[in-house]
Amino acid sequence: MTTIAQKLSDLNITLPNAAAPAANYVPFVKSGNLLFISGQLPFENGQLIHKGRLGENVSVEDGYKAARQCGINIIAQIKAAGGLEKVARIVRLGGFVNSSADFTDQPKVVNGASDLFVEVFGDAGRHARAAVGVPSLPLGVAVEVDAVVELAD
Amino acid sequence: MTTIAQKLSDLNITLPNAAAPAANYVPFVKSGNLLFISGQLPFENGQLIHKGRLGENVSVEDGYKAARQCGINIIAQIKAAGGLEKVARIVRLGGFVNSSADFTDQPKVVNGASDLFVEVFGDAGRHARAAVGVPSLPLGVAVEVDAVVELAD
Amino acid sequence: MTTIAQKLSDLNITLPNAAAPAANYVPFVKSGNLLFISGQLPFENGQLIHKGRLGENVSVEDGYKAARQCGINIIAQIKAAGGLEKVARIVRLGGFVNSSADFTDQPKVVNGASDLFVEVFGDAGRHARAAVGVPSLPLGVAVEVDAVVELAD
Repeated sequence: MTTIAQKLSDLNITLPNAAAPAANYVPFVKSGNLLFISGQLPFENGQLIHKGRLGENVSVEDGYKAARQCGINIIAQIKAAGGLEKVARIVRLGGFVNSSADFTDQPKVVNGASDLFVEVFGDAGRHARAAVGVPSLPLGVAVEVDAVVELAD
Repeated sequence: MTTIAQKLSDLNITLPNAAAPAANYVPFVKSGNLLFISGQLPFENGQLIHKGRLGENVSVEDGYKAARQCGINIIAQIKAAGGLEKVARIVRLGGFVNSSADFTDQPKVVNGASDLFVEVFGDAGRHARAAVGVPSLPLGVAVEVDAVVELAD
Repeated sequence: MTTIAQKLSDLNITLPNAAAPAANYVPFVKSGNLLFISGQLPFENGQLIHKGRLGENVSVEDGYKAARQCGINIIAQIKAAGGLEKVARIVRLGGFVNSSADFTDQPKVVNGASDLFVEVFGDAGRHARAAVGVPSLPLGVAVEVDAVVELAD
């Protein structure tokens, strides 16, 4: 049976060290079997990728990559929580897309995270989600994604 | 005792076939007793109703109708999940209202979904909610609503 | 052992009467051990404080105060739910910041709520969160915050 660690390796995905808490909140809280993960930004190797706004100065392709990187950082938090090999289900993603008033392709952007979770976790990666536009995000990033994950006992 | 199916019939509400997954996400995920339902758009008979923006080209009345239709589609997903007659409580709604910068009546719009759930489920339909403005939504719709529902064992 | 009521008193925080339901939704729903709390607005003594928009006519300092007041109102709802002395963990906050297109300090604003929860509940107050910008909010407020709280059995 392939472990998730092996699967990540096969996909050439290197998990970053999970981002440290930036304030009086924490990157994840476990309650019962549910792991609530804070909104993750598209940091890659300590640098923000794809700052800006969809419909203005970020393409759908780059937004997709930014959402995928948010997803990688969510997986890094799952690992930091000790849950990498215990994911029973990715339950829900919230995708916030920095959007101009006339940009309506939020789903195509958030697919960057959705596709990642299915690549890595298979059917357990299929999740409910909401994808919406927002006028601005922390640090000027193009995408923020948070998550609820069910861990096995 | 009146079933929910009967109640819907009494209210002349016809549930659509639940919308199929549009990508690598699914319309609902059950975790424990909680059913997490993806953000629903105001599709009616396969057509989007009330595209546009509150405070600009969509009235509060039409926004209310759009939110109600999102709610009907949430109920269709509850049915698709096999939970229509097992709703213990509508736990939480998230209401995202496509809004101009000066539109502040998001609650009146999201009431379209809130009123529906109480009509259909009675006290079990009374839920927590957050209603916020957003600058843009998938496909240009006026309202998107997601939900968390508790099902009986 | 200090009770939370004592701690609030030590911090000179007076809880308001919990806001009544404004429509067909309720301020909180308990499901299992989780308490879902509706989006709270910065009411203080029945008056809204700090209406307006960050990056336009509300400073980060005033936004922080508004978020703190939303947090106080969340604690008032926890009390109304009978849970004030039973908080096992503040699980998640959702922080919605009324933002201009170029405002990117949403985290500094939402810290007003985050800091409050740690002051009042200590380590049990450390939560996951998502902080995003929105173009407009109910009644024109600067900040709205909702919450998921785990109560002890």
